[in-house]
Order: sequence, then C-alpha cells, then structure tokens
Amino acid sequence: MKFSIERAVLVKAVSQAQSVVERRNTIPILANVLIEATPDGVSFRATDLDVEVVDRAVAQVERPGATTVSAIMLNEIARKLPDGALVQITSDDAAGRLTVEAGRSNFNLATLPREDFPVLAATEYSANFTASASVLRRLFDKAKFAISTEETRYYLNGVYMHVAESEDGPMLRCVATDGHRLARIDAALPDGAAELPGVIVPRKTVGELRKLLDDDEADIAVSVSETKIRFATADITLTSKVIDGTFPDYSRVIPSNNTRKLEVDASDFARAVDRVATVSSERSRAVKLSLESDRLVLSVNAPDSGAAEEELIVAYSDEPLEIGFNAKYLQEIASQVDRDNAVFMFNSSGDAALIREGSDQSAIYVVMPMRV
Amino acid sequence: MKFSIERAVLVKAVSQAQSVVERRNTIPILANVLIEATPDGVSFRATDLDVEVVDRAVAQVERPGATTVSAIMLNEIARKLPDGALVQITSDDAAGRLTVEAGRSNFNLATLPREDFPVLAATEYSANFTASASVLRRLFDKAKFAISTEETRYYLNGVYMHVAESEDGPMLRCVATDGHRLARIDAALPDGAAELPGVIVPRKTVGELRKLLDDDEADIAVSVSETKIRFATADITLTSKVIDGTFPDYSRVIPSNNTRKLEVDASDFARAVDRVATVSSERSRAVKLSLESDRLVLSVNAPDSGAAEEELIVAYSDEPLEIGFNAKYLQEIASQVDRDNAVFMFNSSGDAALIREGSDQSAIYVVMPMRV
Repeated sequence: MKFSIERAVLVKAVSQAQSVVERRNTIPILANVLIEATPDGVSFRATDLDVEVVDRAVAQVERPGATTVSAIMLNEIARKLPDGALVQITSDDAAGRLTVEAGRSNFNLATLPREDFPVLAATEYSANFTASASVLRRLFDKAKFAISTEETRYYLNGVYMHVAESEDGPMLRCVATDGHRLARIDAALPDGAAELPGVIVPRKTVGELRKLLDDDEADIAVSVSETKIRFATADITLTSKVIDGTFPDYSRVIPSNNTRKLEVDASDFARAVDRVATVSSERSRAVKLSLESDRLVLSVNAPDSGAAEEELIVAYSDEPLEIGFNAKYLQEIASQVDRDNAVFMFNSSGDAALIREGSDQSAIYVVMPMRV
Repeated sequence: MKFSIERAVLVKAVSQAQSVVERRNTIPILANVLIEATPDGVSFRATDLDVEVVDRAVAQVERPGATTVSAIMLNEIARKLPDGALVQITSDDAAGRLTVEAGRSNFNLATLPREDFPVLAATEYSANFTASASVLRRLFDKAKFAISTEETRYYLNGVYMHVAESEDGPMLRCVATDGHRLARIDAALPDGAAELPGVIVPRKTVGELRKLLDDDEADIAVSVSETKIRFATADITLTSKVIDGTFPDYSRVIPSNNTRKLEVDASDFARAVDRVATVSSERSRAVKLSLESDRLVLSVNAPDSGAAEEELIVAYSDEPLEIGFNAKYLQEIASQVDRDNAVFMFNSSGDAALIREGSDQSAIYVVMPMRV
C-alpha cells in the first residue's frame, strides 16, 4: 500500500475514526485503525465491536492495499505535522511496518494484519430514509441530557428513536429518560421512515453521531434494522448496534392534566436557579419554587451552610403552589429551551411537571418533584 | 458589619483569596475567608497556615466589623451575580449569619467567629526591596518548570531565591531543579536586596505570586526573612513561609567545560522533539540527538510501537556526537527560550548539557542525558 494525502485531510479522517477507539483495550487490534487504499481513495475504519466508523478521504493512491496501525498514534502524528504538509504513507507488509513521511519527518509504525480486524456483520436494513443534519441534531441534542447512566437500567442508556402518533399525524420521535426527568422531541416524519422499528441508540453512538451533524446543509442517510442503525454522509459511515432491550412505555409519565401554567424567561430562570443552588454543596440540590400571582420565589435551604432566595417576575395566575426540584435537572431543561419563554405546567407539589418551549409542542420535558 | 461593594470588585478580591484555600480541610475555618470592614475599606484574608493572602478592596462601609464565611461559596455567589450589580453584605453576629444581597437575590450564609481565624505570626524582615512585576515574573516563570515534585526531597519543592556573584557583579538569582534538569535565572540586584537571605519559595506560593504579576507596570514590595517571604502590591499582600531546608550547591552541576556548540531554532526544535516522541507511549521518552556538521537528526525508537526520526538544519561544526535526553525535558526547556535561537553546549554523551538563549547568560538551563 502506498499513497499520499494532504495533512488536513488525514487529520480530519483519522480524528473521527480514533474517537471511536476505546482507550483501554483487552484486544490489541481494537486500538488500531484499518487503512484501506483503493484506486478511488483511502478509508479509515475503527471499531469497539459495538460502534464502527468508516471515514473516506481523497488521496493519491500509488499502490492499493490495506493494513492496521495504532489509531491514537496515527492521529497524534497527523496533528503534529506542519500545516500544509503532504503526507506519504507506505506499508511494508513483509516487515509488518507502516511508514509515514512528511518533509524531514519519518515515522515507522508497528502494524497488525488487516485480516485480524473485526468488521461488523452485515445487516438487512428495514427502513432507509434521509434527514437533514439540523433535524437529527435537534432530535438528539435536545434529548441526550436525560439519558440514564445507570448501567443496571441498560435499556435507558440511550435515545429511543421511533415513529409516534401525534395530533399532527405520525412523527419521528426521540425520547430519553433516567426515571427522574424525560425529554420527548418530535420532527416531521421523513419519507421512507414509516417502517422504522423503534430502536435505542446508545449514548456513545449519539456522541459520535454529533460529529457528522456539524454541517447544517448536509443530508444524512439513515438506515435502521432491529439490531443496528447506520448514519452516512458522503465521507463518513457510522454503524452501531442498538441496545437490545425494551424502552419503557414513557407516555404514562407525561402528565396530561396539569393545568397550572407558569411562563418565565428561560435564561433568567436558569441563572436564578444556578445562583440559589450555590449555597448547597450536596449532589442533589433541591430548589423550592414558591408561586403566587405573577411572582416566583426560588429558594434553597442547606442548614449547615446557608440559605438563598431569589424572586422572579413571571406570568402565573393560578392558586399559590410550592414545589421542589433537583436544581441540576431544572437548569439542564431550561438550557434546552431555544425560545425566550419556558412554559411550566404543574398539578400538585407531588406531581411531575411538564415543561415546553413557549407554545411549541414538538419538544416537551418532564421532571419529577423532590420533597422540600 | 455592613458594607456595599461592586460585584466586579468583590469577584476580583475573593477569587484571589479563595485560590489559597485548600479544597480539603480538616480544620473547618481554613475553608473560610476572613472579611474585615473598616472605615477605609474591606479586606479579604485566606490562609492554609503556610500561605496567607490579604486582598484589600474599595467598599462603602456603613458599619465596621469582621466575620468569616466559606471562601468557595462567597466566590461562587459573587461570580454568578449579574454583571454590574451592587452587593450589600451584612453580618448578624448574634445569629452567626452573613447576608449577601444583590437585586432580587438574597443569600444567608453560616459564619465562624473571626477570633478563630488563624493569622500568620508577625516576622522581622531582614531585607526589603522593590522589584517590577515583569522582573519577578521572568525570574519565577522561567525557573518553575524545574521544581521537583518529589516530597522526600522537600528542599527542592520550590524556587531558591538568593543573591549570587556573577561576572557582572551581584545578581538576584532564582534556581530550581529536580536533579534531572535545572534552571538558573538572573536579574539585576534591586536596591536593598543585598542583605537578602537565600530562601526556598514553595511551589504553591510561586503559583499564587503569579497572579500578582499580571500588570507589567506594577511595582512589587518584597520582604524576606529567614522563615518568611512577603510580596505586596497596593491591593494584595501575599505572605508565605519558606521551605525549612538547605538548597543544594547547584553550581557543581552546571557544566563549565562544555565546548561543543549547537545552535538551533528553538520552536522548530521543540516541535520536532514533540513529533518524534509521538511513537513512544512510555512516560520518560528518550530522544536521541545525532549531530554532525550543521545537521541534527532527532530520533526515537520504541521497539513495540515504532520508530521516528526528523532532520533539522542547525549550526554545528564540532565532531559528530550522539546523546539522548528525556523528550519532555527538552521540550520544556526549549519552550522557555524567548529568543529565536537556543544554544546547546555539549561535552560527551555521558555529560549534562547546558542550554542558553542565544548569547544571553542571564538564563541558563542544564539537563542530564539519558542512555539511548
């Protein structure tokens, strides 16, 4: 194998590939990236056996071939080479070495045979559709904060993507929850997505996917089966197993009869919660919301260290209400709100609250109360 | 105690004070900042029993007094208050609480009595002099990378400041070493510094001092005794115990007979070392320097993972030489070099190398070789 590639192109392709590689590997070849050079160009493939990414890049291929080399080392070398350098990559299969040359720098790296590199089994995808990067970004970005980190509830360790019926017809929906809060984000159903089986996309895949979605204008080809999901742009294909489990029936926890409505400036609210939470050093800081006509008082009381309160002018015309929440959960939800106003719908102090962005129904959040 | 203070003034004063506070304290009051309000203004004092910082700030004092309150909490509250806010601070000594008010925010913090706050014992200083912030910054910044982190060699855990004789007469000198490398930085002796006893300034104090030196034009009043050192600006006084130990006779390790001279662009050199070191994942990566007429080859050989080499055009006209160094040590020294050119003086491959910045003798570095 022999090819030359621009340093910037190499950096981009290898950095995405190496981010899939786990830092600690019991199987040595999983630390490597598989480089495949064909007359059409070069691809860089990395996997942790659950997620696989393939980055295709333009290169001047002199001799096709393939080998595997440490992903982290190749990435570091590429990054450290001078801007604008042309990089020559040559494999010596007999010696089991890969040479990387640029200007006066010369690297000679140990390789492992390409035959040993695990490739994810092929799958028949039952749904194929195209979605714009901005739509997918919204669906996953707004939901991911609520993903559970509890390993015993593995079926909550991802974002549940599925087709859901709404008042406006079928929607493409992403849901995440950890049992304390929930995010439910809807988008118009793309053509071809109606047959989509509901799948739980693992947290790591959601993170890797994010890197494909930076270009607003890009179209992403999505393919889904019962066991796998694939996202592809012209240059990158990200394939992932989905979580083998059943996502719970979340619709039961979304309150439908909450009638007490609070409207508040989302960023004023988030900042005030952040301030009053300062006086408590506990991990789960409880903030009390005390509501009466057009007035919200946020307060925290930590007997050992202190107390704090702050008043906000809001829109609220229902009966007085006192209700407590985890400060971090409130802040995270408030920071999802893209519009000026967050709308809270409460029932009693013992019931979950529903949060919307203004009058928009396509993104809703639920948070469980805490006793205060 | 009652005073009002601008939020930005409070942030500046408290952030410097709280950085002295250790995150884990067995003595609760050491987590606190002592606030003292007098008709002239307000001061914020924090200590870890070895280092003490006092920040004075302008405030509208309505009722003088003093109390202590969590430094981290007060700092966080100040930071989170809106820009431009006027902050009202009131202590209720009977209740043992401190109130912080700004706009619609209200904080009520637990206090500990000012009487319990430890104050460093007063000292007679035997030398008092003034130095500009830029001179002190150079002395300490260029030396501190070589401070030892080995706790058993506690007398190397700081920068040794003393008066030294040089060819140009007496100088103010800072030296640091960890036994593997050494930095020796000289500056003109300020008036009044001739009587300075040699003192070892601890690493933490060097870090705190750095924050006093941002303003190039500032004059710093330095006072030194056998046991303490004090740095003072108009607003801040930093007092520190010095390390109770004897700094070794470093002059013995500075080579005086090295005659083989290498001149190299410092940043090209640092970048090349960084690149070739990539192929080794060991903590102490050895880089081999192979010198012959006007040519330097840097190389690293890590049998398991790979090899790298890079050639640099340099000025060198002595006999060929091969010598190895720890890559990190070379990079750290090269990054101290303010001028374009680093000058290396070698003897044999078993002897320490001396590094200078061009022809400047006021900053020299020594690094021990490694077998390669």
